[in-house]
Amino acid sequence: MTRALTRYRVAVHILPRRGVLDPQGHAVADALHTLGFDGVRDVHIGRHIVVDADAASSEDARASVRAMCERLLANPVIEDFEIAAITHA
Amino acid sequence: MTRALTRYRVAVHILPRRGVLDPQGHAVADALHTLGFDGVRDVHIGRHIVVDADAASSEDARASVRAMCERLLANPVIEDFEIAAITHA
Repeated sequence: MTRALTRYRVAVHILPRRGVLDPQGHAVADALHTLGFDGVRDVHIGRHIVVDADAASSEDARASVRAMCERLLANPVIEDFEIAAITHA
Repeated sequence: MTRALTRYRVAVHILPRRGVLDPQGHAVADALHTLGFDGVRDVHIGRHIVVDADAASSEDARASVRAMCERLLANPVIEDFEIAAITHA
């Protein structure tokens, strides 16, 4: 007997850890000031990754994407990740 | 009289438009298959940008970040953006 699989869409945010230098964010904040966006105080730039995957349940999909983050998608020394959303794809 | 400003944290997702080649996403999907994540069907990689900005209201903060996306943060030819969340910083 095979388990029925469902297609899930899992969104992940990966951001530089607080305290880690974020040169890209600083550069963008400076550029926004130059464009006249004076209200900008800070910018952090990370990755938004959307994984479409087949899994038996949304909990399985979450666990699988968590393992992907730990093994490939995020660098735990300098980055934090969070699973932002799980929806049916 | 000056208007009181509040610090808002605005999160933005910027993703390649559907139909635009996403070579980074394909490379990551292939790497995940190599690692044994056989359930992965598709991967899209974009940017997750967090802007801390002072604004008079959350609507002002949203409008300001939308203008930032249109003028600097996103490339409208190949990317879509969405304002994912606005919170008090």
